[in-house]
Amino acid sequence: MDRTGHPTLQDVSRHAGVSTATVSRCVNDPEKVARKTRERIERAIEELGYTPNFGGRVLASRRSNTIGVVIPTMNNAMFAGALQAVQEVLSDSGKSMLVATSGYDPEQEFRQIRALVGSGADGLLLIGTDRPATTRDYLARRAVPHVLTWCHDPASEAPTVGFDNHEAGKVIAEAAIGLGHRALGIIGGISTDNDRAAGRIEGMRAAVAEAAGGVRIVGVQETRYSLDRGDEAFDRLMARAPIPSVILCGNDVLATGAILRARARGVRVPEDVSITGIDDHDLARVVLPALTTVRVPQRDMGRQAAQVLLERISGAGPVRGRELPLELVWRDSLAAPRQVPPD
Amino acid sequence: MDRTGHPTLQDVSRHAGVSTATVSRCVNDPEKVARKTRERIERAIEELGYTPNFGGRVLASRRSNTIGVVIPTMNNAMFAGALQAVQEVLSDSGKSMLVATSGYDPEQEFRQIRALVGSGADGLLLIGTDRPATTRDYLARRAVPHVLTWCHDPASEAPTVGFDNHEAGKVIAEAAIGLGHRALGIIGGISTDNDRAAGRIEGMRAAVAEAAGGVRIVGVQETRYSLDRGDEAFDRLMARAPIPSVILCGNDVLATGAILRARARGVRVPEDVSITGIDDHDLARVVLPALTTVRVPQRDMGRQAAQVLLERISGAGPVRGRELPLELVWRDSLAAPRQVPPD
Repeated sequence: MDRTGHPTLQDVSRHAGVSTATVSRCVNDPEKVARKTRERIERAIEELGYTPNFGGRVLASRRSNTIGVVIPTMNNAMFAGALQAVQEVLSDSGKSMLVATSGYDPEQEFRQIRALVGSGADGLLLIGTDRPATTRDYLARRAVPHVLTWCHDPASEAPTVGFDNHEAGKVIAEAAIGLGHRALGIIGGISTDNDRAAGRIEGMRAAVAEAAGGVRIVGVQETRYSLDRGDEAFDRLMARAPIPSVILCGNDVLATGAILRARARGVRVPEDVSITGIDDHDLARVVLPALTTVRVPQRDMGRQAAQVLLERISGAGPVRGRELPLELVWRDSLAAPRQVPPD
Repeated sequence: MDRTGHPTLQDVSRHAGVSTATVSRCVNDPEKVARKTRERIERAIEELGYTPNFGGRVLASRRSNTIGVVIPTMNNAMFAGALQAVQEVLSDSGKSMLVATSGYDPEQEFRQIRALVGSGADGLLLIGTDRPATTRDYLARRAVPHVLTWCHDPASEAPTVGFDNHEAGKVIAEAAIGLGHRALGIIGGISTDNDRAAGRIEGMRAAVAEAAGGVRIVGVQETRYSLDRGDEAFDRLMARAPIPSVILCGNDVLATGAILRARARGVRVPEDVSITGIDDHDLARVVLPALTTVRVPQRDMGRQAAQVLLERISGAGPVRGRELPLELVWRDSLAAPRQVPPD
């Protein structure tokens, strides 16, 4: 017992009948300890109610065995599939995942990063490349191992493990244009401080710019990713002249919201207007009509991002980012326009 | 700078032109420092890249200003609404929320609790009352302030801020019985180690036990909360004799999965079979037909649970739990059975 009555590393070592070095190794690098020994130590830790002291652990190995993840939001489970995969990889390495949310606010993200580093996180997984110089400088100065995901940018300072958001927007817009759509509306996420939302909208614009005559964007609305936030955006786009024959949405949550709004207004999808998503979220197959969308390889991305982060933390040589493929998923919410207007 | 080149509390104090005691207070109890002073200190902290050292902070105040939350899963955003509210309350008090997941596994929950306590969490928010004696003993021995939510049990050792899951199951079953349903099927969550799933199923059984003649349960299937896991359960229930006229589901995720399965099999809802949920998750209004369900006051529950936890941490006298009300939400997935069989 220490002076405050808490059990110490020595107590655990005596109780388990192993050296303090073995207990320390078991706490910091459990995979390096034989299973039976580990179980004996874990039983002693449980029976005594020992909690490894972070300060002591840092002195011993500079490892806390926790990884911090900062995601924009837990709403709509947009990041859940990837996080589940991250958790599984970390768990196999004896590490825990702690998640904090930024609310899409760069200052809140910075506060959460500092809280995670302050509580001893060995490394961080962050979403996207856009963040203020203050945050990037902090990560560099403190030499915090980190990996960026949900994006891919070979020019990024930190390795990115994700997909090309620009390409995702381009692919879905090209699918609509290929079916004969000429008047396109866009409901995107808010692009300020959000490279993913911005990239998707730019990709849609790029497809239109490259298309042959007469294809144009009749309106772009940016709104928060929420089932309800698309209502006003949908109404505004449908009040344009010409009315868009397809509305390309920045993600499946916005697209699902747009379909609910269309249903409430008696607008038929895809007969009166086509609606598309991006992500292949669970909502995409629940809503009727089911969403034509671009599948983001969430689980695979989470798994690989966790692996790359573990490599960075272990300090094993230079670590390279990885780009994951996208896949267009055809369902029922996108069809040819009722009549193709003359070019 | 300390020996490792990291800026110290003294560096921040000099840079901001305030005493080290004020810097320490700003880090540990930001709400007690005048806004302008706090901004000056925060600027100095950012400019220097100072991270409060957890060990030092504990010595100074035993506060890390982080709260740990362990939820079963991030999948399906089942807990997202409440967590968002918890985050907002904590943020107003200058605290951060760190979330870990247990995968509905009591041993993983215990590991995550120890990781959070080890990283200095001031208190914990946990889901439900069911957990092994080992975990409860640990929390008691370490005197970790904690609050339980998603459940209500006045007899619980720790305060609960939530609703009565038994009542939720009873209310929805009574609604079905009241419409004339006599043959009920149940697709529940896995009740082992899960007081919420068990309570909901028991509440449904209680409503049947109290109903007048001829009402019976033709089958109970337990499965993981997932859109896809309900397929087999749905098929098995629909193979019973008599075929159930209503399937009561343990939550909206299972109910949505059941509706998707019915759609794929050409079974009409509610004409051929009614399907109900519990929670009033976003899915409940996205799926067609929209789900008749029991609304759980997620945001309000999260807000109040965070407040009660902050009271516990501040040590301000005995803290009592709170029960939140449930509300039956009528939509389109529950209707009277096609023909009421004779009693």
